[in-house]
Amino acid sequence: MRNIKLTLEYDGTDFVGWQVQPNGRSVQEELEKALAQILQHEITTYAAGRTDSGVHARGQVVNVKTQKAIVPEALHKSMNALLPDDVAVLSVEEVPEHFHARYSAVARRYRYFIGQRPLAVMRRFVWPLQYSLSLKWMNSCAARIVGEHDFQSFCKVEAEVDHYRCMVKHASWIQKDGLVVFDITANRFLHGMVRALVGTMVDVGRGYTPYEDFERIIVARERRAAGMAAPAKGLFLEEVFYD
Amino acid sequence: MRNIKLTLEYDGTDFVGWQVQPNGRSVQEELEKALAQILQHEITTYAAGRTDSGVHARGQVVNVKTQKAIVPEALHKSMNALLPDDVAVLSVEEVPEHFHARYSAVARRYRYFIGQRPLAVMRRFVWPLQYSLSLKWMNSCAARIVGEHDFQSFCKVEAEVDHYRCMVKHASWIQKDGLVVFDITANRFLHGMVRALVGTMVDVGRGYTPYEDFERIIVARERRAAGMAAPAKGLFLEEVFYD
Repeated sequence: MRNIKLTLEYDGTDFVGWQVQPNGRSVQEELEKALAQILQHEITTYAAGRTDSGVHARGQVVNVKTQKAIVPEALHKSMNALLPDDVAVLSVEEVPEHFHARYSAVARRYRYFIGQRPLAVMRRFVWPLQYSLSLKWMNSCAARIVGEHDFQSFCKVEAEVDHYRCMVKHASWIQKDGLVVFDITANRFLHGMVRALVGTMVDVGRGYTPYEDFERIIVARERRAAGMAAPAKGLFLEEVFYD
Repeated sequence: MRNIKLTLEYDGTDFVGWQVQPNGRSVQEELEKALAQILQHEITTYAAGRTDSGVHARGQVVNVKTQKAIVPEALHKSMNALLPDDVAVLSVEEVPEHFHARYSAVARRYRYFIGQRPLAVMRRFVWPLQYSLSLKWMNSCAARIVGEHDFQSFCKVEAEVDHYRCMVKHASWIQKDGLVVFDITANRFLHGMVRALVGTMVDVGRGYTPYEDFERIIVARERRAAGMAAPAKGLFLEEVFYD
């Protein structure tokens, strides 16, 4: 059995998210439809990050198994010809049979974009926020979460997981091209984690939540201790790392 | 009479262009509708660059006259609350009565974005082009047009103008974040000029038109000598300069 790794970019605005849902258009469904048309058999894909409704990707990784002899370059071209214009295949490569986009991943990197002025051109990809923000305090929060910690306070309550520990390798806020950008790399992410972290850190940055409370929110280990989730539209799955 | 200068950003995708048209949604119409609702009188606006259908702006300048006493900050907020989400007002300021967004402008800067891979996120703002391009040859073309020249070969034939001379202050191609970007600043632009220049220079960059022919195209002084116009979606009016 051949195993094919696809790297994807998508504009999540008009999707119900990565995963197939009964009630709307998913990235997985569009991808599997195109793959089935080319490979002429039923398709199941696995994605590194099951992005929520409205979340974008510039480096989602997916794998698919097939016995068809199609060459990666031909599959790449055909995919981009068949897919709708809000999904693009960036690369296609053959990988060892044991490779699994989700379980083989050792880390993922997400980015969140905040705009501090009215936006028209980038409106689908940025959370417009007119507060002035203290990047110093937001970076204190970011520094606090680096390392292995329990992130239950930043996880949607309905999530079914064994434990809430994540190893955060990098987290920081920067200002770039008039935007405020959060970068985070971790071995795993809980459901809703980046958006809950961003919403809570923004509360600190705008002076609504004192920095000392951020510490209390982490140790509380319950979602209602943290701030509101930031909107999906500012979030991108940027990159997935493998050994 | 007070004179108000507005700086605008817009996503031109779903507009028939700047100018009011009988057959579609124009930026001017949306802007005048919002202004009329706030200022409670009939409105006529003047824009620095009458962008074509599908062309975007990140620094369009418009002026409007009124006798109403509204302060610029209040007008700014109200405008952004009323305008559709593909137009944003970046700034509002009071200017001397003789200021005219179009006739007072001494230069405009446009940018054109080409993407050399499949794109989903930026698909509304980039011309996707899978040719490999020689930036060296394209920059030779760019250097050739700097200074005062006759641009009739790059002007739509129906344009009603006295003469075709433009003073190009800057023109260059760069590679940035995986995109190929053309930057041009001139005292004036003829109708369709940037898109005709980009289309023609791309023909040189991909080896379809020899560089020597670029010289012949300029001196021909007729539109059919030049290459096809590049699509509107990659073009942005970036900035307008005043003394």
